[in-house]
Amino acid sequence: MSMLNKKEELCRYVGSQARDEQRAALPGVIDRIIHTLDDPECFAHIGNEPIHFSTSVRDMIEKLRNILFPGYFSNEKMDSVNQTYHMGREITRLYDILSRQIIHVLRHDCLRFDRVCSKCERRGNEAAFTVIEQIPILRKKLAADVRAAYDGDPAAKSHDEIIFSYPGLYAITVHRIAKILHQLDIPQLPRIMSELAHSLTGIDIHPGATIGERFVIDHGTGVVIGETSVIGENVRIYQNVTIGALSLPRGAGEKLRWTKRHPTIEDDVIIYSGATVLGGDTVIGARSVVGGNVWLTRSIPVDTKIFIEEPRLIIKKTNKGDGL
Amino acid sequence: MSMLNKKEELCRYVGSQARDEQRAALPGVIDRIIHTLDDPECFAHIGNEPIHFSTSVRDMIEKLRNILFPGYFSNEKMDSVNQTYHMGREITRLYDILSRQIIHVLRHDCLRFDRVCSKCERRGNEAAFTVIEQIPILRKKLAADVRAAYDGDPAAKSHDEIIFSYPGLYAITVHRIAKILHQLDIPQLPRIMSELAHSLTGIDIHPGATIGERFVIDHGTGVVIGETSVIGENVRIYQNVTIGALSLPRGAGEKLRWTKRHPTIEDDVIIYSGATVLGGDTVIGARSVVGGNVWLTRSIPVDTKIFIEEPRLIIKKTNKGDGL
Amino acid sequence: MSMLNKKEELCRYVGSQARDEQRAALPGVIDRIIHTLDDPECFAHIGNEPIHFSTSVRDMIEKLRNILFPGYFSNEKMDSVNQTYHMGREITRLYDILSRQIIHVLRHDCLRFDRVCSKCERRGNEAAFTVIEQIPILRKKLAADVRAAYDGDPAAKSHDEIIFSYPGLYAITVHRIAKILHQLDIPQLPRIMSELAHSLTGIDIHPGATIGERFVIDHGTGVVIGETSVIGENVRIYQNVTIGALSLPRGAGEKLRWTKRHPTIEDDVIIYSGATVLGGDTVIGARSVVGGNVWLTRSIPVDTKIFIEEPRLIIKKTNKGDGL
Repeated sequence: MSMLNKKEELCRYVGSQARDEQRAALPGVIDRIIHTLDDPECFAHIGNEPIHFSTSVRDMIEKLRNILFPGYFSNEKMDSVNQTYHMGREITRLYDILSRQIIHVLRHDCLRFDRVCSKCERRGNEAAFTVIEQIPILRKKLAADVRAAYDGDPAAKSHDEIIFSYPGLYAITVHRIAKILHQLDIPQLPRIMSELAHSLTGIDIHPGATIGERFVIDHGTGVVIGETSVIGENVRIYQNVTIGALSLPRGAGEKLRWTKRHPTIEDDVIIYSGATVLGGDTVIGARSVVGGNVWLTRSIPVDTKIFIEEPRLIIKKTNKGDGL
Repeated sequence: MSMLNKKEELCRYVGSQARDEQRAALPGVIDRIIHTLDDPECFAHIGNEPIHFSTSVRDMIEKLRNILFPGYFSNEKMDSVNQTYHMGREITRLYDILSRQIIHVLRHDCLRFDRVCSKCERRGNEAAFTVIEQIPILRKKLAADVRAAYDGDPAAKSHDEIIFSYPGLYAITVHRIAKILHQLDIPQLPRIMSELAHSLTGIDIHPGATIGERFVIDHGTGVVIGETSVIGENVRIYQNVTIGALSLPRGAGEKLRWTKRHPTIEDDVIIYSGATVLGGDTVIGARSVVGGNVWLTRSIPVDTKIFIEEPRLIIKKTNKGDGL
Repeated sequence: MSMLNKKEELCRYVGSQARDEQRAALPGVIDRIIHTLDDPECFAHIGNEPIHFSTSVRDMIEKLRNILFPGYFSNEKMDSVNQTYHMGREITRLYDILSRQIIHVLRHDCLRFDRVCSKCERRGNEAAFTVIEQIPILRKKLAADVRAAYDGDPAAKSHDEIIFSYPGLYAITVHRIAKILHQLDIPQLPRIMSELAHSLTGIDIHPGATIGERFVIDHGTGVVIGETSVIGENVRIYQNVTIGALSLPRGAGEKLRWTKRHPTIEDDVIIYSGATVLGGDTVIGARSVVGGNVWLTRSIPVDTKIFIEEPRLIIKKTNKGDGL
């Protein structure tokens, strides 16, 4: 036996012993964990309907995107011969996945779950049907979003490039779907969808936000659009823009849960990177421009440009190679 | 043969020739790559123990989350009948995955790798055991984080919504686990875990940071919390907040590698979006509020509100439709 | 039959009826969707070559990374015995995946797609070959990036830690590959690659950007580097830095599509978090330092430090526990 093998064997042997000791002690620890499962201080989800979303929400969004931008994200060529079969099959599948998923989240939140409840399944099917019914309208809206992105971005070389790779379009696609479900009062799922888009794009749009046509988010990382924001048509925003709520007194959460806390942005507004617009009474008038890094907690009228006064900069010469 | 088929055939034929030429040239290129594998200027990982983490770190975190929030992320309904079997099986599996993963990273960094080493395996098992032992405590801490998030956020409609979809909770969950491993001096893995959370949430918390109970990050994209930060209880921060180090002279990396370089945030502090707090001697006193976009490199006392003076804004009226 | 079973049965029965009604109505909706597939207002991808990238781009980047950092991301131990076979097999596979992927995107954009075209396949093979040929050079460049990251970051405990977990290194790795494809005029794919890195890291580097050696991005979330930026050697930037274009008049997209719109950053510059540098004529001179949150639309000379004047802060004492 070579020296190396001896060492390895020794290591494995001592190791195995160590492992056994810990493994042998596991049942005691597991018992303690199980006995504190229903600790009233902690959250557990026992006896509840599972939400089941783990893998399916992302698949569901991919399926929807395949239908909303037919052929773009498919690995098979779609042409006039197969399009009917392809779309028919994909839409039927989507209906089945979507309705089942919605039924799960409805049952999960259903207060009548332990009583007789016949509504969850019906509501789930109807909501899935509504989403699918709106596909032709969604396609038009998303096409307008694509064109608006292209028109204002010199780095875009084709409409296809925007569809294939722009995170802003991904985020608004997911938002326009999540918004339909949110309007149908479907719990949990719209927010899970918007957080998936947030995770993939850095763009955080609450499904409750109301957003008009031809909406563009460029780059997008760090964008936050709050629940009760109202955004008009032909609005363009850049990375790190917050359309948010004013700060709240501690504990005000409960009282404000159902009021308009976020701004209104009228048609044809541009908001440059890093700008922050806050407050439910704040209105940015139509055709106005909010410059980079502006911090706004009050309204501005239509046809206005607002910039920060360039902060006085302090400039020092350094000796070569001095670093900071 | 149709015209189309002819064209396709031609294309394929010319193409195949082209492919053959390049493919035939591959071995020469591969040889050059292999001969420079051990170029001392470059990094290669040859003869080292592999870290093996590629797929397992994300799975591992999912498994941990399933145990820390029992039933929430499961596709099977958990109830009083199956919870013992379910949790027992999941925790045993987690122990096996986690201990193996930790042993891999220990061996990877083990300087005695080419000598007799019996410690890596034992340490790995013990560390995995420690994580599992702390699950009941972690559950309490995370439940407190959930409640704190709910209390301060009017957009949250239920505690479940926070557990299912809030990126801030995901980031703090991963942090609280990574911190345990970091305190046990496990190399690589804590940082790989925190970077996974960073990738999914945009929230970058160094596993070395010390963070008290009831910690809330809202929206979160762009948040950075440095290695030696100390954060008290009941602190709430918003997107794009940096708790970081002061700028360093070039090349100062080495000297500062083990000193406190990041601020202390005392209990009950709120830091609004875009604020930057820097420096190892900076202390934000208890119950203070740091306003949006504030840039702070010195301490502020307890019970203080600090805001930027609203920068003078320059406002211009434009002609309708003029754009910027 | 227990009461519970009765309820469940009722629920399922009413549910099934509901489902049937909606499902029965699907064909009509599907018909409407299919009949509007070629709506000239909308985007569809019918009769086009599919791009096929869905799963393969991420795999492709992983494969490239495995070859650029040999052994690091492998689950098998690589040593002097197996390295030749391992690398040979991996590089051949990469060539096959990469060439096929490039051919797909070329065909997709090929205007001669409906005529005889023999060039796409040849160009695809040649481009894939070029990428593979440059692997030894890429390895040297990336090793220099790793060393630069380590030298300036006291939180980094080893070079390996940077390779395993730093998002800045991931982003620059993808950029250096995407840039080669961009220079070869490969459409779509470079941008899809850079957006994948953007999604995973929050760092948005346009594949057209020119970036010198020893480039470091720390933390990185929110970084934007525009298409025509030129960045020298030994430059270090932090989270939320924008190297971008000045705002454009509405509709200027088309005219500006091929001009230099983004800054030039000379050698040895540091740009701290939140700084914004804009405009195609803006030059940051060598060895200069741009402080956090600086907003710059004009050039600064070499050996200059530029900071914002610390904004006057408004400080108020609050009563204990008063909150905001």
